[in-house]
Amino acid sequence: MEFQLDKSIEILERTPSVLHALLDDISSEWTRHNEGGETWSVFDVVGHLVQGEQTDWLTRTEIILADSNERKFEPFDRFAQFESSKGKTLKQILDEFTQLRRMNISKLRDLNIQEKDLIRTGIHPTFGQVTLSQLLSTWVVHDLNHISQIVRVMARQYKEQTGPWIQFLKILHQ
Amino acid sequence: MEFQLDKSIEILERTPSVLHALLDDISSEWTRHNEGGETWSVFDVVGHLVQGEQTDWLTRTEIILADSNERKFEPFDRFAQFESSKGKTLKQILDEFTQLRRMNISKLRDLNIQEKDLIRTGIHPTFGQVTLSQLLSTWVVHDLNHISQIVRVMARQYKEQTGPWIQFLKILHQ
Repeated sequence: MEFQLDKSIEILERTPSVLHALLDDISSEWTRHNEGGETWSVFDVVGHLVQGEQTDWLTRTEIILADSNERKFEPFDRFAQFESSKGKTLKQILDEFTQLRRMNISKLRDLNIQEKDLIRTGIHPTFGQVTLSQLLSTWVVHDLNHISQIVRVMARQYKEQTGPWIQFLKILHQ
Repeated sequence: MEFQLDKSIEILERTPSVLHALLDDISSEWTRHNEGGETWSVFDVVGHLVQGEQTDWLTRTEIILADSNERKFEPFDRFAQFESSKGKTLKQILDEFTQLRRMNISKLRDLNIQEKDLIRTGIHPTFGQVTLSQLLSTWVVHDLNHISQIVRVMARQYKEQTGPWIQFLKILHQ
């Protein structure tokens, strides 16, 4: 499948609704536990998605499209949510994500990105030169990646309870 | 996390809404392609969930709870959806799943399952003796497993588009 902005927005605009459908009013047993060690709980993952809206995806898009020679991205802090989500409820951070995402999609549309813009580039701190279409594709896949992580963390809570079926459930082996 | 019926129903009743939030009116490019070879598309996975509602989870629960000595499960046909979904739209099979799931949760509640029932057993065609709590836990994890599969199949459509980011996106390596 080729990159298309409208097809990408289809996913980006659905993610908040998917998370609300999955998580609104659910018992905290499903959302406050992680997968052991330094892994993330559902709560942590949603906090990470908030951070992405605040400092990553749209910010980097704007850097690529700016008429400046300095097109370097700031490194993204993958652990900032442990501070920023502190003391909040899951509902609070999920609402925060929903609002930020709505605003960012609106800004993304206002940028009026054309086919020719998709090959414009920015400088990623690890990868070096990346294109706008790679950044926007990654935004989409990153959403799906974290939905996948969220359902995996939830499934893991019942790992021992499935008995012999564990061998048929790929999600418990990832 | 210990098995609890009400916590399990929390997941089971959310799955149709999650799938509607993710898939309603989305472009078919996201849902009609598979991961290559004999793998399933999003459409195929939803068809499989319909089959599960029709012949698997609640049927097996009722077999376990029946006052009969014959507590053998019929083998589940993992490929029946290729026939049963033929000619239907994604919207049709998703609505079908939603209705069946609503009905099955209602029946599940009506069974008035007690703590002491959770250790009652049925005979699985592959595993032999399994308990009711293992069956019901697996129903829950099976939902999450297929949500995970659906978002993975969707993410895969953009695999090549993410460029160097592919190495950070676990979902593209599963």
